[in-house]
Amino acid sequence: MPEWRKDPIVDRWVIIATERAKRPFDYKEIIEEKKAQQCPLCEGSESMTPPEIVAFRETGTERDKPGWWVRVVPNKFPALRIEGETGFCQSGIFQTMNGVGAHEVIVETTDHEPGLDTQTEKQIEEVLWVWRDRFMDLRKDNRLKYIQIFKNTGSDAGASLEHTHSQLIATPLVPAAVREEIERVNEYAQTKGTCVFCDMIRQEKDSQDRVVIDSDHFLSFSPYASRFPFETWIIPKEHQHDFTQIRENQVKDLARVLRSSLRKMNMVVKNMPHNLLLHTAPVNQAEERGYHWHLEILPRLTIMAGFELSTGYFINPTPPEMAAHALREAQETYPYHDRPLKGVHLYV
Amino acid sequence: MPEWRKDPIVDRWVIIATERAKRPFDYKEIIEEKKAQQCPLCEGSESMTPPEIVAFRETGTERDKPGWWVRVVPNKFPALRIEGETGFCQSGIFQTMNGVGAHEVIVETTDHEPGLDTQTEKQIEEVLWVWRDRFMDLRKDNRLKYIQIFKNTGSDAGASLEHTHSQLIATPLVPAAVREEIERVNEYAQTKGTCVFCDMIRQEKDSQDRVVIDSDHFLSFSPYASRFPFETWIIPKEHQHDFTQIRENQVKDLARVLRSSLRKMNMVVKNMPHNLLLHTAPVNQAEERGYHWHLEILPRLTIMAGFELSTGYFINPTPPEMAAHALREAQETYPYHDRPLKGVHLYV
Repeated sequence: MPEWRKDPIVDRWVIIATERAKRPFDYKEIIEEKKAQQCPLCEGSESMTPPEIVAFRETGTERDKPGWWVRVVPNKFPALRIEGETGFCQSGIFQTMNGVGAHEVIVETTDHEPGLDTQTEKQIEEVLWVWRDRFMDLRKDNRLKYIQIFKNTGSDAGASLEHTHSQLIATPLVPAAVREEIERVNEYAQTKGTCVFCDMIRQEKDSQDRVVIDSDHFLSFSPYASRFPFETWIIPKEHQHDFTQIRENQVKDLARVLRSSLRKMNMVVKNMPHNLLLHTAPVNQAEERGYHWHLEILPRLTIMAGFELSTGYFINPTPPEMAAHALREAQETYPYHDRPLKGVHLYV
Repeated sequence: MPEWRKDPIVDRWVIIATERAKRPFDYKEIIEEKKAQQCPLCEGSESMTPPEIVAFRETGTERDKPGWWVRVVPNKFPALRIEGETGFCQSGIFQTMNGVGAHEVIVETTDHEPGLDTQTEKQIEEVLWVWRDRFMDLRKDNRLKYIQIFKNTGSDAGASLEHTHSQLIATPLVPAAVREEIERVNEYAQTKGTCVFCDMIRQEKDSQDRVVIDSDHFLSFSPYASRFPFETWIIPKEHQHDFTQIRENQVKDLARVLRSSLRKMNMVVKNMPHNLLLHTAPVNQAEERGYHWHLEILPRLTIMAGFELSTGYFINPTPPEMAAHALREAQETYPYHDRPLKGVHLYV
């Protein structure tokens, strides 16, 4: 019998489609076509991108020249532009705003590698620190209300460049999806007096059915109402509403848990295409202390078709308990780059 | 400068990304891999599907045998099942319901054709009538609250069978997305005293910028806040909240407009993958007379990546005015099947 499951936070139902059940070994490895053009994100190609916004680089090296290990540049084809006013215009029933916002690319390493899974933990820590740095900087701009960090890996997940990178889009509005999440979290807090995410962590740890990695500071697990096969969330055990609250020992732990979660996914389905999303509280408004930041990894082995687009209901053929079991068991047997960092970044 | 546009009905913003602008000829034709297996939807393969629910067929021919021209069968791998109670279960913060609902496949013709665009208008009329028949029948089941008819065309749009078919999923809940749409329509009616869809039709007809086809009973147009390149909506000019209110002269006109819209899309991008969605009022509850049913055609030339999945905001690189212009100009020069129907269906 198939099962309807409600997301514990928002009003989003998922059909766990047992009649279409796909077990981990029913998914084929993904073959990515190698691209021939010169990669604009590799070390040495700095002139192919717009001038860098910030980079962690060796002392004495020049801007837009080699010597960096993580580099942030504006998107060459930005969806939004940082210049201008958020002018609002109404024409009959139609409303328009200028396309103000920020659209940045975070180049996660100098080498042409397709994912974070082959990086050292140290390198991933640096990426997490640069994410935090961009938050600290962009929130100074009062026009911006939400900062979305995301990472598309694999062409089925919308990646157009192979070289491992994340992106940041900052918007002058808080997305309705984020507002709904926050409203539900606040409603829950009002009736139960606790954080729904904290309660979820407790319940997941109690049952263990959907836990992938249980570390000192983070829980990596397959959410109860997973929309996608092998969907994985990574959440800090401590209540923190805002990603920038992350501390150094948490960064170290998160780098380890994130890398391990990604490696396990790739052991289950080689080159698993996926989107990685950072969910955190909005900026430049009353602080949403009830929120609880977390990462969501959404594998893209299924296609969102007409039913999903029309209703917002998802059909997931792989029960999250089965997914979590496969991920827990997966041994991370492939190599990663044991490349020493060239310098040390001082965190502020 | 990119532009933010708000959907006139729901709280959904789209970024019209002028810096990433893709003109119609920037899109390549889609090459679909031919599938080798025997098609279970072709005439003569009736035994490969579950027993038929209903079919329009020649008098004297047998159920689950040739002689039909439109045929409805249960989905062989249903996401939901019609048997059972909608039992509800809470365990800590998690909620579950039995996977009750209906999941049907509407086989739109006997021939192995990939879309409705190559069918006769008469054949498309028959498909529309069978959709209506299924609504009339399923709404008798009080457990069902929403009936979603959709059609996935092309593998990038999630179609797993080539043979042209639509699907129906009936659910025991009204999806949050549908509820939001209805709430907004009602709010608009309360403040303005009119239907927002009727006002939209008026404004689109006035400006003509986004009109594709303006027929006696329907308007085919690129919506102002199109999420996808070449997104096209087809809406009855007369206010009807419920698809089953459609009359015979409207069915004839809709068949013509729908076919022509699809053919124009395929002239702009060969084998344009797309989802077709029927939006109509829920069933088995207070009638939502303020709603205004319509069809949405969502081409899948772009990939919904991390940003879209996290925020619900869409990035559309092709302004709808440019899309509508290309569709208006497109000449439908390829042939269609001039195949006489084998019988006549009496509409009730």
